[in-house]
This record gives sequence, structure tokens and C-alpha cells, in this order.
Amino acid sequence: MRLTRQTNYAIRILMYCAANEGRLSRIPEVAAAYSVSELFLFKILQPLVEAKLVETVRGRNGGVRLGRPADQISLFDVVRVTEESFAMAECFENDAADCPLIDSCNLNSALREALNAFMTVLMKHSIADLARDRTNMRALLNISEIAPARVAN
Amino acid sequence: MRLTRQTNYAIRILMYCAANEGRLSRIPEVAAAYSVSELFLFKILQPLVEAKLVETVRGRNGGVRLGRPADQISLFDVVRVTEESFAMAECFENDAADCPLIDSCNLNSALREALNAFMTVLMKHSIADLARDRTNMRALLNISEIAPARVAN
Repeated sequence: MRLTRQTNYAIRILMYCAANEGRLSRIPEVAAAYSVSELFLFKILQPLVEAKLVETVRGRNGGVRLGRPADQISLFDVVRVTEESFAMAECFENDAADCPLIDSCNLNSALREALNAFMTVLMKHSIADLARDRTNMRALLNISEIAPARVAN
Repeated sequence: MRLTRQTNYAIRILMYCAANEGRLSRIPEVAAAYSVSELFLFKILQPLVEAKLVETVRGRNGGVRLGRPADQISLFDVVRVTEESFAMAECFENDAADCPLIDSCNLNSALREALNAFMTVLMKHSIADLARDRTNMRALLNISEIAPARVAN
């Protein structure tokens, strides 16, 4: 049981943007901070942009910023966008007909209840909660006080 | 996020034994009921036997049975034995030093809290809960009323 790498880095991108609030974050700098490729980050950004968790500004001074305040983006908001599947077992899926117990087993409902409890906790934690120590985070992520790109309104 | 195939079949083996309570369940019959190989089931049985969730009886009339009553085996008891890792993200692991935020991020504790909520639900559900409709289960699993192997005391 593990979150995907996509989810992990989606949360990191959002934390970077939260630490760099009020300014645009440039992908090459985010990629350098986390030692991953820009291409990988672009792939992860796509669903985040579609879900309006992140906004992009194009152009030479472009970059990304949070789509809404960090305290209004929960970990659940991220996970529902970035996790490919919440099928905890094959009996969550329509084509799981190979298990003879599919219609008379309570495993599916027990796992759903457990998954709901998991998600309920994620709803309580926001990106702002994760990025509370902003000064320290900016230092760790090597975000300069004078950011290279300003927010274009 | 998904449970491993090992966990899925461990639960199914235990459900088979619960449906066949008072008798030994033979691996070829369990394998046939779930359309998997005997070798795969033997691999899954090993940690279940070590954790005393299942007992094996050797010999021509041998087989497996639950190590304790089905209502005393929770889904949590199974999952803790069969899941390889509960590292929800790489920052759960000691060698996750590649994330610069490792010491100043609350993601790890948020995910731990969510995982605890998940496990707390699994603790409330037993193998007996899953296998409550015993008559129907026996029919679905093709367990005959006169079992080929009796419990050897």
C-alpha cells in the first residue's frame, strides 16, 4: 500500500508553490530543488492544472502558482486527482468476476469503509499545514527572496 | 493505492477455512475454488502459518485450518502479515534523504494519521464477518458437506 510517485511529487510541487506564495514558481527551479526532470514535473502538472489546483502563466517570465489559497487545498484534493485508482482489491473492479465470492463477501465494503477513514483524515490536512514553516522551507528549497519571476496579473 | 495480491488471496484462504470450519481444507481444492496455482497459495500460506493465523496438518489427509476462531482474526491481523510495506511515501523510509524537505514537512505525520485511521477500521472487521453467510459460501466455493479430509486431533 503506497501512494504513487505522481502523488508524492504533486504534493511537493504544491508545497513549493505555497512556500513561494505571491510569486510564480519556475519549473526548472522546482525540478532542481527536488532533483527530478522537468518533463516529469510537466506530466504531473497537467492533471493539477485541469483540476485548478495550479495555474500556469506562459511566457519568458511565466511559471506556476496555486489555483487557490494553500489552506483551501487538502491532501484529499490532491490524491483524488493524482492517484490512478482507489480499487483496493480486484473486487472493487467490474471485471473481478473470477472470484466466486464476489457477490457474497463483505471484504469490498470493509475496505471501502477503511479507505473512507483514510480519506477523511486527508481532508483535514491542507497544503498550508504542510508548508507552515515557510522561511525554513524557502531556505531548504533554495527559493531566493527576490524571485526571478513575478506574478503577472 | 492498492493491497497486494498476496493480501487479497490470504484473505480468501482464510475465508475458505472459515467456511469450512471444523474440517481441514486441502490446498488443491482451495486453489481450484479460486482458479490459482497451488504453488502461489503455498507461498501465501507461509507467512500466515508463521503468524499462527493458519495451522497446517501434514500427510495424505492433511490440509489447513484457521489458527484461531474466525472472529478473532481481524483484517488488520492479515494485512500486517501480508503487506510488504506501509511506507505510504518515500519519506517514510530511512533512505529518503533526496527530498530536501524531509525534516521540515508534515506530510509523513499526516499520512501516518490517515494510515492509522485505515487500520483502525480493519481491526473492527474479522474473517468471521466476511464469511457470515456460510451456507452460501460453501456452495460458491464448491465445498462439499462431506469434506474429503477431517480434522485430525
